[in-house]
Amino acid sequence: MMHELDCFFNPRSVAVIGVSRNAEKIGSIIFRNLLDSGYSGAVYAVNPNAETVFGKRCYRSVKDIGGEVDLAVVSIPAQHVTQAVSECAEKNVRACIIISAGFSETGNKEQENEIAGIAKGRMRIVGPNVVGLYDPYSGLDTVFNVKCRQGRPGKGGIAFVSQSGAFGAAMMDWCANEGVGLSAFVSVGNRLDVDEADMLDYFAEDEKTAVIAMYIESTKNGRRFFEKLRKAAEKKPVVVMKAGRSREGSRAAQSHTGSLAGSAEIYSGAFRQAGAVEAKNAEELFDFAKIMALPKPAGKNVQIITNGGGFGVVATDTVVKSGLRLASISGDAKEAIRNAVPPFAVVDNPIDLTGSSTKEMYEKTMETVLQQDSVDAAIVILLLQVASLESSVVESVIKMKKYLKPVIVCSTGGEFTGIHKALLESAGVPVYPTPERAVRALKALSGIK
Amino acid sequence: MMHELDCFFNPRSVAVIGVSRNAEKIGSIIFRNLLDSGYSGAVYAVNPNAETVFGKRCYRSVKDIGGEVDLAVVSIPAQHVTQAVSECAEKNVRACIIISAGFSETGNKEQENEIAGIAKGRMRIVGPNVVGLYDPYSGLDTVFNVKCRQGRPGKGGIAFVSQSGAFGAAMMDWCANEGVGLSAFVSVGNRLDVDEADMLDYFAEDEKTAVIAMYIESTKNGRRFFEKLRKAAEKKPVVVMKAGRSREGSRAAQSHTGSLAGSAEIYSGAFRQAGAVEAKNAEELFDFAKIMALPKPAGKNVQIITNGGGFGVVATDTVVKSGLRLASISGDAKEAIRNAVPPFAVVDNPIDLTGSSTKEMYEKTMETVLQQDSVDAAIVILLLQVASLESSVVESVIKMKKYLKPVIVCSTGGEFTGIHKALLESAGVPVYPTPERAVRALKALSGIK
Repeated sequence: MMHELDCFFNPRSVAVIGVSRNAEKIGSIIFRNLLDSGYSGAVYAVNPNAETVFGKRCYRSVKDIGGEVDLAVVSIPAQHVTQAVSECAEKNVRACIIISAGFSETGNKEQENEIAGIAKGRMRIVGPNVVGLYDPYSGLDTVFNVKCRQGRPGKGGIAFVSQSGAFGAAMMDWCANEGVGLSAFVSVGNRLDVDEADMLDYFAEDEKTAVIAMYIESTKNGRRFFEKLRKAAEKKPVVVMKAGRSREGSRAAQSHTGSLAGSAEIYSGAFRQAGAVEAKNAEELFDFAKIMALPKPAGKNVQIITNGGGFGVVATDTVVKSGLRLASISGDAKEAIRNAVPPFAVVDNPIDLTGSSTKEMYEKTMETVLQQDSVDAAIVILLLQVASLESSVVESVIKMKKYLKPVIVCSTGGEFTGIHKALLESAGVPVYPTPERAVRALKALSGIK
Repeated sequence: MMHELDCFFNPRSVAVIGVSRNAEKIGSIIFRNLLDSGYSGAVYAVNPNAETVFGKRCYRSVKDIGGEVDLAVVSIPAQHVTQAVSECAEKNVRACIIISAGFSETGNKEQENEIAGIAKGRMRIVGPNVVGLYDPYSGLDTVFNVKCRQGRPGKGGIAFVSQSGAFGAAMMDWCANEGVGLSAFVSVGNRLDVDEADMLDYFAEDEKTAVIAMYIESTKNGRRFFEKLRKAAEKKPVVVMKAGRSREGSRAAQSHTGSLAGSAEIYSGAFRQAGAVEAKNAEELFDFAKIMALPKPAGKNVQIITNGGGFGVVATDTVVKSGLRLASISGDAKEAIRNAVPPFAVVDNPIDLTGSSTKEMYEKTMETVLQQDSVDAAIVILLLQVASLESSVVESVIKMKKYLKPVIVCSTGGEFTGIHKALLESAGVPVYPTPERAVRALKALSGIK
């Protein structure tokens, strides 16, 4: 059975209400992004003052559209939104995204209530005050930023729910750039109807979603949220970042999405109780979300493989400090590795393949350590600046998935490194720029407090 | 008067000993990088088995070169290095970088002592076991990684000294990609002669260097190092990261650059006493180095300016938690800003210009707050995904240097954002991907413990 919210992600047809002839207006950007996004359903433009826009027919009202409309995206000044939603209700539109701002975040709670009243029992509403919604699987793209400024991530397993639109957009852009794929993105904004709890409910059931990542400043209904969080976390990992932790931050949140944030400690405790993973900042949110789809390690023993001594030292420090342990491999395993690496390589933990490392050395070393029962996870440091290390080492790392143990990569650098990082990420291998962030993520996956 | 070590950074001529006809060998990479790097001195190739290499004349020995040789770069197997150094000494070469590995890091301390004996009083030696040395001002580039794999940073004010070559190379690559400039880079490796203390001494006097950043695993001579550190820190900010903090990490460091690391607590205390800034990880090392050339804030009051509510909330939380304070601006200043921004913008702290922000709004807001005595520093959050914000906002931010207060930027995203971040960085405006990292750096600049 289709989930009630599926219309937001897989509508058969979309109407954009507020497509201006000015290409720089938000409604126009959304309309053109939709035409351009690989979305296969019908896309309609609505604007009472235009016959055509961007070479396409334009409708005076959503009611004038001949075919059925599953989803309406509303991007017009706040004072006209109530009327537009009423017309959507008359047209039997089933889902509505209100992009427009100027509602409860500026004190205008009344109009939100009025719109909620119109929608009740007839349609579901996302927003107002949102950046949009994006689904790389259906191709639906209602995010109002132009693509040359904000990238769109490819298909992946992370569903990202953000209360803040700008935070969400920046993170999507970042994911697209790093090669991290999403199952869907949605900004929930003022939540006059659909809220973060509904989204938990939806993504918990969504098969394409392996991990749910959330940025929240407050909850609309705390009890219901934590109930849904608990249920979702039983099904798949949920990583949550709560902003507005300080009194001052909470006040800033109120003028942002029109809702009061609660005490940080209460939230942290409730996240723990619900079985969710708390991220303390934006980097953790994505560092953790990226790793959570991997198999959970059977124990705490980590093998470090590096081609840079310094990174190996830092990784060692961090593993020891984290509560994870340095794995020990058998003498036979060491011997097998020694036969495949130069005499000056260090076969211990870390295993340092040195600047003379090649793809073959990495492959043999990874195979050997991952076959050891005493190794629960591996951190593979790839410094791709050295000329001897072939690009295809990326494929060797990806192949290690067969061992069903977490294998994560630490790699830092510029453009050349970036290309390889993106290849790994898009194959589901999480990559971190520093040993510290790699270890912190592995610790979160292991469930060590 | 020229510093004794200046020959390493500004030699009039360089000989590369060990240029193979095989373009993939390290000596060949260094030779070709040197020809290609904008370095204006003479560059000689040495190889007893070749008449020409890459279309250039090749010398059988450094002694056969007609002109003077200031600097020799040695990249031949360890067993031949002693002989090569002897010949350099005979030729009156003043500085020598030994790239080759296979010395004390593999137990071969004896040969290092022998080489040190030959060099004593005749030449200074960097290495062995190093990735090279780079000076963007003189164009000298002896780093053995090819440029398509590892970028070279532009001119800037950070001198970066790394005990680990691979760590240094990865960080150079990262700096080049982010637009962060260096005054010089040097990897000191096994330090048979020149060590981190010598480098502190050199960069403390170097006018192009505004900030010294160091990655160390150990010190060759602790007392001398901390003495030089104290003297350097009196002249300019020094940021130090110490790896090998755990017993296990220290052991890994020993097999890496052949020296025992000491207790983490002793180091931390000594850094503090010497007036250096300690970085706890690689991100902090560069996050801190980037900010330290800015004027130190007169007080703790920080104004946050944002166009994304969520980032404003997180920045607020983090400022409050850090020990910095949220600045308050006067009623007149608020009024002046309100007249320049949309009615739904929030003029408080944070000032939220919202997704409708423009370059003009940012410029007016920054000007107004920085003129306030009650504002000691500003964190400017620029989310460049929104279409209304012109690229030239970057120039507006750079102009704010005239107020002699630290102004730092927080910006996250992909390619489009990256271009703007690099423009800011290359103009000396530090940019951080998250509010947390921006605040942590500002706290380090403020000297709050």
